[in-house]
Amino acid sequence: MAADAEEGRTARKRKQILDAARAVFLRNGYVGASMDEVAALAAVSKQTVYKHFTDKEQLFTHVATTAAGEFDDLTRAITTTLDADDPAKGLGTLARTFLGALLRPDVLRLRRLVIAEADRFPHVGRAWYDEGFERVLDTLADCFARLAGRGLLHLDDPRLAADHFMGMLLWIPVNRLMFRGGDDDPYAEAELDRLAEAAVTAFLRAYG
Amino acid sequence: MAADAEEGRTARKRKQILDAARAVFLRNGYVGASMDEVAALAAVSKQTVYKHFTDKEQLFTHVATTAAGEFDDLTRAITTTLDADDPAKGLGTLARTFLGALLRPDVLRLRRLVIAEADRFPHVGRAWYDEGFERVLDTLADCFARLAGRGLLHLDDPRLAADHFMGMLLWIPVNRLMFRGGDDDPYAEAELDRLAEAAVTAFLRAYG
Repeated sequence: MAADAEEGRTARKRKQILDAARAVFLRNGYVGASMDEVAALAAVSKQTVYKHFTDKEQLFTHVATTAAGEFDDLTRAITTTLDADDPAKGLGTLARTFLGALLRPDVLRLRRLVIAEADRFPHVGRAWYDEGFERVLDTLADCFARLAGRGLLHLDDPRLAADHFMGMLLWIPVNRLMFRGGDDDPYAEAELDRLAEAAVTAFLRAYG
Repeated sequence: MAADAEEGRTARKRKQILDAARAVFLRNGYVGASMDEVAALAAVSKQTVYKHFTDKEQLFTHVATTAAGEFDDLTRAITTTLDADDPAKGLGTLARTFLGALLRPDVLRLRRLVIAEADRFPHVGRAWYDEGFERVLDTLADCFARLAGRGLLHLDDPRLAADHFMGMLLWIPVNRLMFRGGDDDPYAEAELDRLAEAAVTAFLRAYG
């Protein structure tokens, strides 16, 4: 029992540190972030930070890979939304879910940070891409393959169709917000609806 | 005549400084770059650098906007390739040209740098997006509208069609190289041919 309680405390502290580190990295960038600041924001001693993470680089790696794990919500959204009988409706819901999740200011800021540091920390960029980006596309491709098996989509290469769906949906809004920022000029909800609908319509003309 | 020669010398020096600055920024990032290094690489005095650019920020702005000007080659490629009678062939050539131009390591590294600094220097990210990214899409949309006018494409919203074409073509390879780097793992030519062909096929099913 005592050991369990100790484990729970350790896990809680670790999460506290990771949350604080994410906030500090997003605010100051990698170079501008310090372990002191992370400790202060997490309300733990610097020693405690170092007990969990050997250095800033390891902490950054964990922040980014934890964030890539948040893509789990999206893979679940794919399987629950698309395994119904009406692909047009499912795709519409899914498109809107993706825009809502991926255009969130903190998600975009973390994405920008991972890209910024991809030269310095290639393993972080790779983890983000392989465990986040690619996993979502593979899940979508599996669903497309099932829909094609039931005659609801027409395609030879499910992964290519998944790439095309996501590209039509995300290329413009993600790039616009990556380059132009979006804190003071976000997309209106109606514009996101329009983007989602347009991508689904074009996708179904190509693969429906 | 003497004034002309002087002007020529000044323009040449300015170009020398901009080329050197681009190389230094790409190598060291914004924070890591120094005016001393730029002067040394350009083989001019630091005074000369400051005569042309008041500070590092102004120099960075000029490097990025000059690079956005390189998109001119792409807008020219669009108009010369697409104004023929065979949109499938023109689109195929164009798709391949885009992949070749935008996946170049130095272009990707500059893109990464502009994204990395978009929070600190919003005007640089905006200039890149508005004068580079958007201009290419607007040019493509104009060509699509002309092709639709001649009955060679079927679309209501040429700009949306342009967004979809670029999204299907670029979303995957650009993101892969942004996150994973590409210096040690570039796309093979045959893979680029396949990506270009697949995007054109899907686009023509949606809009042909």
